[in-house]
Amino acid sequence: MNLDFSSNVFETETIDLAGTREQIVRGGRDLFHKLPAALKDIDQIGVIGWGSQGPAQAQNLRESLEGTGVKVKVGLRPGSSSVEDAEAAGFTEANGTLGEMYQVIGESDLVLLLIADAAQAENQQAIFDRLKPGATLGLSHGFLLGHMKTVGAKFPDNVNVIAVCPKGMGPSVRRLYEQGKEVNGAGINASFAVVQDIDGNATDVALAWSIALGAPFTFQTTLEQEYLSDIYGERGILLGAVHGVVECLYRRYMFQGMSEEDAFNESCESITGPISKIISKQGILAVYEGFDDAGKAEFEKAYCASYHPATEVLLEIYDDVESGDEIRSVIAANKRFERYPMGKIDGTRMWEVGKSVRARRVEEDIPVNPFTAGVYCAVMVAQCDILAAKGHAWSEIANESVIESVDSLNPYMHYRGVAYMIDNCSTTARLGARKWAPRFDYLLTQQAFVAIDTGAVLDKKVFEALLTHPIHPVLKTCAALRPSVDISLGE
Amino acid sequence: MNLDFSSNVFETETIDLAGTREQIVRGGRDLFHKLPAALKDIDQIGVIGWGSQGPAQAQNLRESLEGTGVKVKVGLRPGSSSVEDAEAAGFTEANGTLGEMYQVIGESDLVLLLIADAAQAENQQAIFDRLKPGATLGLSHGFLLGHMKTVGAKFPDNVNVIAVCPKGMGPSVRRLYEQGKEVNGAGINASFAVVQDIDGNATDVALAWSIALGAPFTFQTTLEQEYLSDIYGERGILLGAVHGVVECLYRRYMFQGMSEEDAFNESCESITGPISKIISKQGILAVYEGFDDAGKAEFEKAYCASYHPATEVLLEIYDDVESGDEIRSVIAANKRFERYPMGKIDGTRMWEVGKSVRARRVEEDIPVNPFTAGVYCAVMVAQCDILAAKGHAWSEIANESVIESVDSLNPYMHYRGVAYMIDNCSTTARLGARKWAPRFDYLLTQQAFVAIDTGAVLDKKVFEALLTHPIHPVLKTCAALRPSVDISLGE
Repeated sequence: MNLDFSSNVFETETIDLAGTREQIVRGGRDLFHKLPAALKDIDQIGVIGWGSQGPAQAQNLRESLEGTGVKVKVGLRPGSSSVEDAEAAGFTEANGTLGEMYQVIGESDLVLLLIADAAQAENQQAIFDRLKPGATLGLSHGFLLGHMKTVGAKFPDNVNVIAVCPKGMGPSVRRLYEQGKEVNGAGINASFAVVQDIDGNATDVALAWSIALGAPFTFQTTLEQEYLSDIYGERGILLGAVHGVVECLYRRYMFQGMSEEDAFNESCESITGPISKIISKQGILAVYEGFDDAGKAEFEKAYCASYHPATEVLLEIYDDVESGDEIRSVIAANKRFERYPMGKIDGTRMWEVGKSVRARRVEEDIPVNPFTAGVYCAVMVAQCDILAAKGHAWSEIANESVIESVDSLNPYMHYRGVAYMIDNCSTTARLGARKWAPRFDYLLTQQAFVAIDTGAVLDKKVFEALLTHPIHPVLKTCAALRPSVDISLGE
Repeated sequence: MNLDFSSNVFETETIDLAGTREQIVRGGRDLFHKLPAALKDIDQIGVIGWGSQGPAQAQNLRESLEGTGVKVKVGLRPGSSSVEDAEAAGFTEANGTLGEMYQVIGESDLVLLLIADAAQAENQQAIFDRLKPGATLGLSHGFLLGHMKTVGAKFPDNVNVIAVCPKGMGPSVRRLYEQGKEVNGAGINASFAVVQDIDGNATDVALAWSIALGAPFTFQTTLEQEYLSDIYGERGILLGAVHGVVECLYRRYMFQGMSEEDAFNESCESITGPISKIISKQGILAVYEGFDDAGKAEFEKAYCASYHPATEVLLEIYDDVESGDEIRSVIAANKRFERYPMGKIDGTRMWEVGKSVRARRVEEDIPVNPFTAGVYCAVMVAQCDILAAKGHAWSEIANESVIESVDSLNPYMHYRGVAYMIDNCSTTARLGARKWAPRFDYLLTQQAFVAIDTGAVLDKKVFEALLTHPIHPVLKTCAALRPSVDISLGE
């Protein structure tokens, strides 16, 4: 991948990540005054859809662009159940910032298409047909491109096509932006991609969009690399893998004789709480280094046993995303929803236990279980290794595999539970998590835990590789690029 | 589907299955004298491959055709690890019944292609190129056609193409044939399909092949319907679903406080032992009717709660097979084997417990657990219902969803364990079971068991449908067509 860009408005910076050079743009509220220059041809931004990203992006953009004369207008299907929510957030027909989806698409200079993936796929041609010639189509996710590849479709050639993809879910994009009012630059990192640039402005529009969302730093990718890493990542450690991991660890600890509460504490609480915090603040290796000798040995054993089974599942996920099968499967699943809407996965005994554990939680008392940590870190690093082998940039690898987990998703999971979190994700992400979590669970149980319990010889090389892994300095560089603000949730 | 055939050699029979008429051919050793007439243009049958079907078909054919002058010759890759096994079964180079695969393909009049699915896909063109003009290509599974559809390939037009697909694994095809020496007609039912008939003999060759394998009755299908139902079925109740069902039931019973042995008895042993036997001899409804009132209520509850989650997974499987995704995924998985060969799934604690339970088993003491039975029968009937809705013939539905389970696979699972059985299936079946078992496990746990445990209102209509389900008379008709012989395993 040869990525290179220049901006007429924003300062770029070149950073060294694991021996590769990447160009990035730092964000911050002190750059908001440059937004009008970057958006010089744009009078109206249409934010289409009010799902996860819609509310966050519409509100962040409106606030960042206040006083610039650029109008942010939300577009929804007629009769959409989100009208009330959009109005509550101040987007109303009365004040001219809420309208019918296709009308808003037709009148906007920048159209941010944030409706559900399946709806994008289904309505793609009608949407393209309504775009003004010379307008800019903005995506926050490459799913549509993935789908278009499976059916052989093309973007219209008379518009710019760009993407800005926040590496966190909508509520995090909004929450950290709000926190960022006090701390300049708190926010969710984003990748950007320029797919078509018909007027030479596409890069600056994308960077302005990202900065206005509050991204502390923006890195470049291609839309294809984006959807590969994004759909893969959410099926992996971001959602699917973390769910499978906590389910199989909880069961293992129960069968070893722990109480339900202890098993939950030593598996799920340990990951979404202290382990995530350590990784967020000090990196992956710090988790290992924090243990005593017995803990280190336990971590190492779990790590070595889990790395290969995790890689096996992750390779399959990457293949399925790359071949288009995973995208076709999302489209097919949407067609079955009329008969079987997706049910909740949050009702099982484990997650009931989780509720009562959280209710009585004393944050400082949550254990850092070395076995749990070893399994979790093995899956996380395996995910990074596959992305690196497939040629993804280190910014993308670090964000899709580590930063989005420990800074955006795991804090929500810690607040409400992993299963609850999955039940409230985008349809594409939910489907993926439901599909792959059980696979991680079974394979770790069948391979990793059996290897440990039968005293099989483990592959120590993967642990040696961890000690000097390029992800450690990459995370350090990424951390230096933003103020260290923990997302604050709940009251 | 409009199926209709006539034979110049064998008597056909029309049977009524759930109000539809199907034409079948009964088998039996008393028909072996007609085999030469049906195979009049065939001097040599090449049996290519020595996996699951190869050893069974080569030996059954050799014995059925003894004294007819039709030679059965096994073809293997040079250096194949199966040479020794083939020689031990009497197929040797010395006696002219063992040769290099492509040579045997090139010299045979009927070529039975029984190598692994991925190998068929990979070598398809080379195989087609070696076929003699006018020869007959025989398949025992439609996977190759499914693959050819995904890549747009065609069969050569100068050969017959037929399929005979035993509705049981190779070892059962062999074992029941051996038992059939004493009981005329013991064996595994088979479907047949004629894909190309260039000389008018294709139907009779197919029927002769099926009868020579020992099929008690042979019914017609299309090769497409065959691979759809076969790949779907093995991912469903035949392998994947039964594995997922016993895993989640075992775990449920453990968490309810049962000992490991009891939990194994009430889940796995119950299904592979008495429940399968009752279904085999008396049909599905007899399982329910055998319970007292409390047991009936328990069965009904488990059935109603499980039917819809099972249907949800099964619909996804059918969609994925039909779209070609499942076939592409098998091909892709084969390419990953070099790095990660498929590991065993049989090493977990549950299957260790299973070993000790089996070692101390008293067959008559195995419980018929009503909850277990309700879940299992719900998945089985859901599988039938989807096949019926997709237009499959009732012979195929009954064989792919019920008869193959209770008469071929479950007895082996009872003998060695479900996980062991899966570890020793064809690669395509193993991959499918590993992929879908965890999905059945999770969805039943998350939906069915949660609904039961929270006292949710269950859909009683699915149970009413069970009471008058067309599968019951269909199974009765199928049972009347063959001698009731239990497969005998072990010493």
